[in-house]
Amino acid sequence: MSNAAFEPVTVVLDWGTTGFRACLVRSDGSLVDQKEVERGIQTVAKGEHGRFVSEALASWRAEYGTLDIVAAGMIGSRNGWIEMPYVPTPATPADLAAAARTDGLPEGDRITFLPGVTDPTAFPFPDVMRGEETQLVGFGLDRDMIVVLPGTHAKWAEIRGGHIERFRTFVTGEIYSTLADHSFLSKVATAERDHAAPAFAEGIALAQEESTRAGGLLTRLFAVRTGWLAGAIARDEMKSRLCGLIIGWEFVEARTCGWFEEGDTIAVVGDDDLVEVYARVARAFGLKLAPAPADAAIRGALRISRRGPVAAK
Amino acid sequence: MSNAAFEPVTVVLDWGTTGFRACLVRSDGSLVDQKEVERGIQTVAKGEHGRFVSEALASWRAEYGTLDIVAAGMIGSRNGWIEMPYVPTPATPADLAAAARTDGLPEGDRITFLPGVTDPTAFPFPDVMRGEETQLVGFGLDRDMIVVLPGTHAKWAEIRGGHIERFRTFVTGEIYSTLADHSFLSKVATAERDHAAPAFAEGIALAQEESTRAGGLLTRLFAVRTGWLAGAIARDEMKSRLCGLIIGWEFVEARTCGWFEEGDTIAVVGDDDLVEVYARVARAFGLKLAPAPADAAIRGALRISRRGPVAAK
Repeated sequence: MSNAAFEPVTVVLDWGTTGFRACLVRSDGSLVDQKEVERGIQTVAKGEHGRFVSEALASWRAEYGTLDIVAAGMIGSRNGWIEMPYVPTPATPADLAAAARTDGLPEGDRITFLPGVTDPTAFPFPDVMRGEETQLVGFGLDRDMIVVLPGTHAKWAEIRGGHIERFRTFVTGEIYSTLADHSFLSKVATAERDHAAPAFAEGIALAQEESTRAGGLLTRLFAVRTGWLAGAIARDEMKSRLCGLIIGWEFVEARTCGWFEEGDTIAVVGDDDLVEVYARVARAFGLKLAPAPADAAIRGALRISRRGPVAAK
Repeated sequence: MSNAAFEPVTVVLDWGTTGFRACLVRSDGSLVDQKEVERGIQTVAKGEHGRFVSEALASWRAEYGTLDIVAAGMIGSRNGWIEMPYVPTPATPADLAAAARTDGLPEGDRITFLPGVTDPTAFPFPDVMRGEETQLVGFGLDRDMIVVLPGTHAKWAEIRGGHIERFRTFVTGEIYSTLADHSFLSKVATAERDHAAPAFAEGIALAQEESTRAGGLLTRLFAVRTGWLAGAIARDEMKSRLCGLIIGWEFVEARTCGWFEEGDTIAVVGDDDLVEVYARVARAFGLKLAPAPADAAIRGALRISRRGPVAAK
């Protein structure tokens, strides 16, 4: 047995619809190793998840002994491994810990599933998140702040008094990708979105146009096509323009519903390129940005499961 | 030669992205015969359109002699047979007739392509229609009225003083179909939309909710999912709910932009089940409906091409 076995390590597992990603981390959150498998959780049959995980992590077990795994997100959904409950807002890390569940695995590993969060005050139905609550805890709940978590179903969440106070979902990423891939645009547009392109900024500006001459979202979306027909938008600018418009529109709706005012400080939390995309839109709306760690999901998983002393920043 | 040859008949051709439909009509607009071929215009190579039409209409030519064909819509678009110009608003039937173009076909037939219409006052780019202008003329331009033409890219048009005065596009149908077929809904929803279902009315009601607690469109769309998670929406109700919400939202945006006020009379013009779907939403928004013919496209084609004395109703 190597010396490595004496380091307390935890596996933070992110297994969603598109792939399996495991991070082996120390109790301070620092990364030791990482594994990715392109295998969505729904492609593994019910009852086979444990064996899949045991096999995928075999080399780590050989080096570090039986593993301590923490998992949040879609893995705990109806279509995942086991269906975990939703903890209602206002929710603290202790509330989330109390709803977690630890199971033994065939090779002696342990896996702790973290719950999701529901906001029962949302209209007309309770809103839901799975995974973002862990990112919020990893970001830290000690400062009252509005936090945006970009994604297919982007979340705007309010942190207040050490709680996840409330949140709402915007289907921004879903609208963007379905239109980019399956609409009037998909046969014409050539390049992927580029948030550094002028077309992205023009999309934001169209979202920000306040006079009714621009119409609502359903009309503004058509401007990506009419701009192309008018020769004002090139094929390789169309997706950038669409992306700026749709994310910009998310901010318009959020502002209308009281999530922010110009001059406020918010945080954008995530681990992919959408963080910088959203940060750019936020600045265009006169927002200041609080710093946020890219590894909030890992910090949150350790904090909720009490596997590490990772403090809220 | 049969007596049929002495009746003056016209072929009104609707050849779009999904199929080819030809109506043989008398000068009063009454239908003599009809042919449908499931062959989108883009599946026929450039230069082959004339031969395809000549062959598809051979039996009519044998009975009625060389044919007089009138075509509007996508057939005259960049990806169609020939690219026809857009006539700017305000546009009259005479303006449209002046921009039409008649070509000879191999077997001695003649085909008249009608132009589209552009609204150069639209922001940020000129808006465009192809085919709907012909429906508007067929509906009649003698009454000042707001006319809604449902579809993938629905149009709201103002008729004023005998002109098509202005119009705007809403991508309602595109948002509905891309979400219904390619989103979080597509794997869960089981039944197609049913505008007679309570879920459709509930979708309209959600669009009409005026307090900011309901959020904007990007948030309200997620309620189709959260309602299912909460057990409040069944799988077979999801598409009806989505449809009511999205078309309802089109009316919210149209009202915000000044297209109507409660109590106004508008017309819904089209030839498929969307007419009744839109009529139901219009009534929910307090609108009265002017009667409209289901064959507005045929009436308009005859009127613009001066092939028949079909008067505006």
